[in-house]
Amino acid sequence: MTPQALVFDAYGTLYDVHSVASRCEASYPGKGAQLSQLWRAKQLEYTWQRSLMQRYAPFSQVTREALEYSCAALGLAFDPSLTQEYLRLAPFPEARATLERLPMKKAILSNGSPDVLEPLVRDSGLQLDAVLSVHELRVYKPAPQVYELAVQRLGVPRERIGFVSSNCWDALGAKSFGFRVYWVNRGAAPLDRLGFEPDAVVRSLDEILR
Amino acid sequence: MTPQALVFDAYGTLYDVHSVASRCEASYPGKGAQLSQLWRAKQLEYTWQRSLMQRYAPFSQVTREALEYSCAALGLAFDPSLTQEYLRLAPFPEARATLERLPMKKAILSNGSPDVLEPLVRDSGLQLDAVLSVHELRVYKPAPQVYELAVQRLGVPRERIGFVSSNCWDALGAKSFGFRVYWVNRGAAPLDRLGFEPDAVVRSLDEILR
Repeated sequence: MTPQALVFDAYGTLYDVHSVASRCEASYPGKGAQLSQLWRAKQLEYTWQRSLMQRYAPFSQVTREALEYSCAALGLAFDPSLTQEYLRLAPFPEARATLERLPMKKAILSNGSPDVLEPLVRDSGLQLDAVLSVHELRVYKPAPQVYELAVQRLGVPRERIGFVSSNCWDALGAKSFGFRVYWVNRGAAPLDRLGFEPDAVVRSLDEILR
Repeated sequence: MTPQALVFDAYGTLYDVHSVASRCEASYPGKGAQLSQLWRAKQLEYTWQRSLMQRYAPFSQVTREALEYSCAALGLAFDPSLTQEYLRLAPFPEARATLERLPMKKAILSNGSPDVLEPLVRDSGLQLDAVLSVHELRVYKPAPQVYELAVQRLGVPRERIGFVSSNCWDALGAKSFGFRVYWVNRGAAPLDRLGFEPDAVVRSLDEILR
């Protein structure tokens, strides 16, 4: 059954976060890869921990705090201007054409708070019917109420929504909720063991068109 | 104000998980450190993700699934017998004497499911007034209802409970809940940035006696 709407994750799925690593390497030569890896890991950890603690903070704040921790852990001077890189991410090369060729409703559903997500989408020029943020719910993915937000806002039943994410745990959270799920596995990562499997695994966004 | 009860995390706080890394190195020479690090990281990730997905699974299962993922990620054959190491952890050298010298009620509050936690505590001979597991709540730390379990079972108000953990995020989750918190920072790790700070930072359990 063809989905009536497709809902996309933003960071790493429509937008390439590779430039964050490049910027880290430029600021801290020889330490960029290690810093950006730890920064990303802590950024996600803090979203899960704060959600469970019932102490939500916006993604922009969590991103800055994760960088502050990571710099301390690696003995580097904290440079908050690195977080600006998240406002300037480029879409993946195939993102624009893929979105244009998909005939159904298209939306973003992201952990990003509006202060960082909206400028990113606007400046990138990707055409979407809705840009949804967890911010109004004060809880992060993979809580089911996040995926429910897309059902409510798009007015499409969950079983008619296709969900696309490069983050395996996000794809499986969406599957647990009841979406039809495409996992964009660009780097041949192993499947996360969370009791669910994606409906389809693709290597790039344009494979969804098939 | 002296706490009326002290509540301890188990893994890494009372019990040394170092032997897990040794066992990994024995099974996969040259890869043990990398495997045990990834395994631990995934074990925790899965507890947070499953809690948010409302798809609880017991810690013994999460531990096995995290190992399965980690072996796949590193191209190693999956050896489920490695998980048995969690049943045989040794207490830290100062744990027994410290517990004996503390005059108040003492309890464990752990992510461990009873199938792994109870044999561990029994065989180690540590004397405790209660061994509490998140298992009955079907949600993991740092959800506030986990810390609330200690209040209910010990019959001590939260502000009179001292909580001891080597996991910074666990210590801060307990602080957010309202405990008096000791962070056992054995390795001089940076403080996690989660909006809270521990009441005291110690290098080993016996420093709590001061």
